[in-house]
Amino acid sequence: MQIAGIFTPNVVPLHDDGEINEAELRRYVDWLIDQGLHGLFPNGSTGECVRFTSEERLRIARITIEQSDGRVPVLVGAAEANVVETLRASERYAEYGARAVAIVSPFYYRLGPDQVYAYFHEIAKQSPIDVLLYNIPLFASPIDAPTVRRLAELERIVGIKDSSGNIESMMQMMRTIQPMRPDFVFLTGWEATLLPMLLMGCQGGTNALSGIVPAFFRKLYDAVQAGDLELARQMQFDLLDLFNAVVYEIEFPVGLREAVELQGFQIGPSRQPLSDQQRSALPEIRERIGRALRSMGLDPAS
Amino acid sequence: MQIAGIFTPNVVPLHDDGEINEAELRRYVDWLIDQGLHGLFPNGSTGECVRFTSEERLRIARITIEQSDGRVPVLVGAAEANVVETLRASERYAEYGARAVAIVSPFYYRLGPDQVYAYFHEIAKQSPIDVLLYNIPLFASPIDAPTVRRLAELERIVGIKDSSGNIESMMQMMRTIQPMRPDFVFLTGWEATLLPMLLMGCQGGTNALSGIVPAFFRKLYDAVQAGDLELARQMQFDLLDLFNAVVYEIEFPVGLREAVELQGFQIGPSRQPLSDQQRSALPEIRERIGRALRSMGLDPAS
Amino acid sequence: MQIAGIFTPNVVPLHDDGEINEAELRRYVDWLIDQGLHGLFPNGSTGECVRFTSEERLRIARITIEQSDGRVPVLVGAAEANVVETLRASERYAEYGARAVAIVSPFYYRLGPDQVYAYFHEIAKQSPIDVLLYNIPLFASPIDAPTVRRLAELERIVGIKDSSGNIESMMQMMRTIQPMRPDFVFLTGWEATLLPMLLMGCQGGTNALSGIVPAFFRKLYDAVQAGDLELARQMQFDLLDLFNAVVYEIEFPVGLREAVELQGFQIGPSRQPLSDQQRSALPEIRERIGRALRSMGLDPAS
Amino acid sequence: MQIAGIFTPNVVPLHDDGEINEAELRRYVDWLIDQGLHGLFPNGSTGECVRFTSEERLRIARITIEQSDGRVPVLVGAAEANVVETLRASERYAEYGARAVAIVSPFYYRLGPDQVYAYFHEIAKQSPIDVLLYNIPLFASPIDAPTVRRLAELERIVGIKDSSGNIESMMQMMRTIQPMRPDFVFLTGWEATLLPMLLMGCQGGTNALSGIVPAFFRKLYDAVQAGDLELARQMQFDLLDLFNAVVYEIEFPVGLREAVELQGFQIGPSRQPLSDQQRSALPEIRERIGRALRSMGLDPAS
Repeated sequence: MQIAGIFTPNVVPLHDDGEINEAELRRYVDWLIDQGLHGLFPNGSTGECVRFTSEERLRIARITIEQSDGRVPVLVGAAEANVVETLRASERYAEYGARAVAIVSPFYYRLGPDQVYAYFHEIAKQSPIDVLLYNIPLFASPIDAPTVRRLAELERIVGIKDSSGNIESMMQMMRTIQPMRPDFVFLTGWEATLLPMLLMGCQGGTNALSGIVPAFFRKLYDAVQAGDLELARQMQFDLLDLFNAVVYEIEFPVGLREAVELQGFQIGPSRQPLSDQQRSALPEIRERIGRALRSMGLDPAS
Repeated sequence: MQIAGIFTPNVVPLHDDGEINEAELRRYVDWLIDQGLHGLFPNGSTGECVRFTSEERLRIARITIEQSDGRVPVLVGAAEANVVETLRASERYAEYGARAVAIVSPFYYRLGPDQVYAYFHEIAKQSPIDVLLYNIPLFASPIDAPTVRRLAELERIVGIKDSSGNIESMMQMMRTIQPMRPDFVFLTGWEATLLPMLLMGCQGGTNALSGIVPAFFRKLYDAVQAGDLELARQMQFDLLDLFNAVVYEIEFPVGLREAVELQGFQIGPSRQPLSDQQRSALPEIRERIGRALRSMGLDPAS
Repeated sequence: MQIAGIFTPNVVPLHDDGEINEAELRRYVDWLIDQGLHGLFPNGSTGECVRFTSEERLRIARITIEQSDGRVPVLVGAAEANVVETLRASERYAEYGARAVAIVSPFYYRLGPDQVYAYFHEIAKQSPIDVLLYNIPLFASPIDAPTVRRLAELERIVGIKDSSGNIESMMQMMRTIQPMRPDFVFLTGWEATLLPMLLMGCQGGTNALSGIVPAFFRKLYDAVQAGDLELARQMQFDLLDLFNAVVYEIEFPVGLREAVELQGFQIGPSRQPLSDQQRSALPEIRERIGRALRSMGLDPAS
Repeated sequence: MQIAGIFTPNVVPLHDDGEINEAELRRYVDWLIDQGLHGLFPNGSTGECVRFTSEERLRIARITIEQSDGRVPVLVGAAEANVVETLRASERYAEYGARAVAIVSPFYYRLGPDQVYAYFHEIAKQSPIDVLLYNIPLFASPIDAPTVRRLAELERIVGIKDSSGNIESMMQMMRTIQPMRPDFVFLTGWEATLLPMLLMGCQGGTNALSGIVPAFFRKLYDAVQAGDLELARQMQFDLLDLFNAVVYEIEFPVGLREAVELQGFQIGPSRQPLSDQQRSALPEIRERIGRALRSMGLDPAS
């Protein structure tokens, strides 16, 4: 199954006591698929992967894949404490039926390009499943363009999911990789630059906001496929208000969880305690999200 | 005269003793215009404005405007020690016949948004000539999107020349400014993202590399105007090798000066002494530039 | 037991297959104590805490505390996926006999000051054991001076272990905290500025290099206590060569593991695969470490 | 004359119309010398050198040197558009009787270490007067430790005035330079770390705040010379409130100009227009400065 289109890095609904709300997660998965998204992406940054235990990450992936039930491909974020643990988790995701794993480079320590290469090389050698590089330099060691090119020589590595929003870097990668590896997949994880990325050749995106307005993202993607640049441009600009409200007004992914809640899902509290400041900012955030949705012609569900 | 299209931020040819080579500057200006560029932009970062004295900056602008002789509009970089001096220079540029001045925000000290606003507000109140904001956060205090929006309320400020290459920021500005000020001009000074910027709505660019391959830039711009996305995309990717050789391989604008020299102009040594390291890197840089030009179907003139 | 003096953030010896080498860890702990260090600090950044599983972290702490057997206090690095897991681990460390836990602020996501406060506030409310704030802004969300001051109001929070090396920030904290909380402990984790930190009022350090040359650190600390500024200054400058070789020449903590190996311990390979570049740099690193040790009047054991 | 002790980087009093207030500048110079400072330093960042024209910079230096009349040595900040202009200015400063010039590395463009070396090498070859390297990485191209060491081989370069506040970097420089060049001068321009810098071996400081409380700085310096660590430490901590009010509460050097005004000098408005935000912050800033002065046992003069 070809990796292309819009994949939702989905949040995890929680009960008030912090436990995973499985029923709501299943309901949410169904809704996303029904709205026309091309795929799902549990255990990404949006899904707050690092705030769950290893066991919980397995469970979240299993539920998501089970519930999607072959209707759409599922990419699973896979990043554990070290190579051995990451491979162990990847094997389980493969058994569950994931299409591929997306592996963030090591975080906490900031590794240099050669070490990032060594890490992914080790994984690529042994992975039982296709691997997407997951570049998110804000949070983890950057995977720079020359390193991506070197890693593109390894068969198991089938693409990159880039959340830097840096369109020049994306083009620099395409320039050197596409001639030697035409099947290599470029996905963007930064919705503020989604349209320019698609116009320059990305096959799709993994966009957190598609978890709020999935049909909108599908329509924008279809407009690009149909060559309707005018409509696509209008939609891209319309997206910015929602993006600003969700991403810049409050720490990620608090705003996103609120927005999905506004769409009628019981997302519950995050695992990271809210600060007093965040708590008092929330009503205004909700209002701005509602306003942004209405300006896009979309009424919040609630 | 409408500000749109590709403007060349032209380098200044120097004699071996460091003095301005007026004859060669005039010959260079003629060539750029003959190759089809839409305008010129002396005293920008490419023109190494800060390495000249105030008197020399006046002279460079005067020569460039005189030589262009109304064939194309000329934007002049204007940034002196303080508001009074900057206004004094702007008056002279207006007398010479500049279309507008592009004013970089104060540098050395890094000013906050409110101070950047105060600076441009003071200038806009008194300027005898249209003003373009010149945002180049790598070198000078950043002019952020909200500040540009506030400044767009002032009539004398007619647009922005943005050299950050940040397409998201450009869209954020367009989103808030275009509804209230449809005539506001957005120019990009970062050629690695020229095409996406034009596709998202920029009216043109001030691109250093257009001083090397002016006809190529004109053709790329025309392809966008004609809606030939396929050709434009190919050209944008073709541009990256030249960009990398000129901008990333050696400190700016040493590589650019070399490249223009390769095109048959006697550019001479920069005012900043070359380091031993740079000196020994130059042959390889020249070779890479030549290779990049040939891969674009352009033989270096020399 | 008062927290003061030099604590070693100890590395974990591994077998060639990556498993914890318990016997060697015990032997290493004994040596460090015999050489006169004031305490131990397992599961810090030096101990590569994030490259072990939760179960392994418990085991490392248990072995270290068991082996130190009350001879010196043990601070344990405690940072799990979320508040609940961190508290659960802290309870275990308390049972093992840890003197306190040092908790790094959340990493991956970069949290703002108010969120960092909320996180530690939640932990302080419920922790069964004294808590040291662990500030390491290179790797984790920074805990800034005003936040430390606010957290110093909570009884369970007894001090800070700061690995930023920023002496101004340390003084800013002391200035506001010491008047209200004279018992609050300030430890520095950056040996390149150890002496100035001690002179300005720090009670001690958690210094990775003390795991290589424990007696040297003890002597430097004693010189400060004795008011022998001349000797202390000489030793601080002597330390810089070793620091440079271990910390700046190769990614942390590869160089440190090598250096401890040179002192006669079987540290084994790190969990993060070495890059080709690192592998070929190692002989030179070892040589530099040896040279640095000899210049300090210390012959490498091997 | 030996360069050692506290040098004041003095501000320039201006008339309301922005012209230099010569009489007040002379009165201010007298006061600073009378209060016991070791030297003066016009045309530094505190003196807002870049906001004056080349001619004005000459005049400021001339007045300051004339007025100091041999009572204390004067270091003059010298940084013009390029090597030729910088040398030309340095010649004039030498004629006026400056003890040395302090030359900031090129700004606007960010130059690499090899280019910074080439720039200072060119100047050192031809300078008619001793040169201090002026490192202020916040505003200009950084002069890193290895480059300082290379430049210390040139006789004309007699020291460094470092405004980074980075004590580790200062020690790294001392470590490699002192053995080969025992006369090389290390001055710190960051008062928040003045005492630790002096304790580790700096010969003095160029501290903006000494322009507000010159006698306090002299006393702190003397306490260090006398080995009274306890008093020096107390004074260093006492300094922090004033530093915070002047440096962190409002953009530099607005707060400093206010503080000197509070000490009874007519400093007048800066050349950079104040923002509305700054204007409304000023009363609170003045209050904080007054409070800080009183807490140091110093009543503001006004």
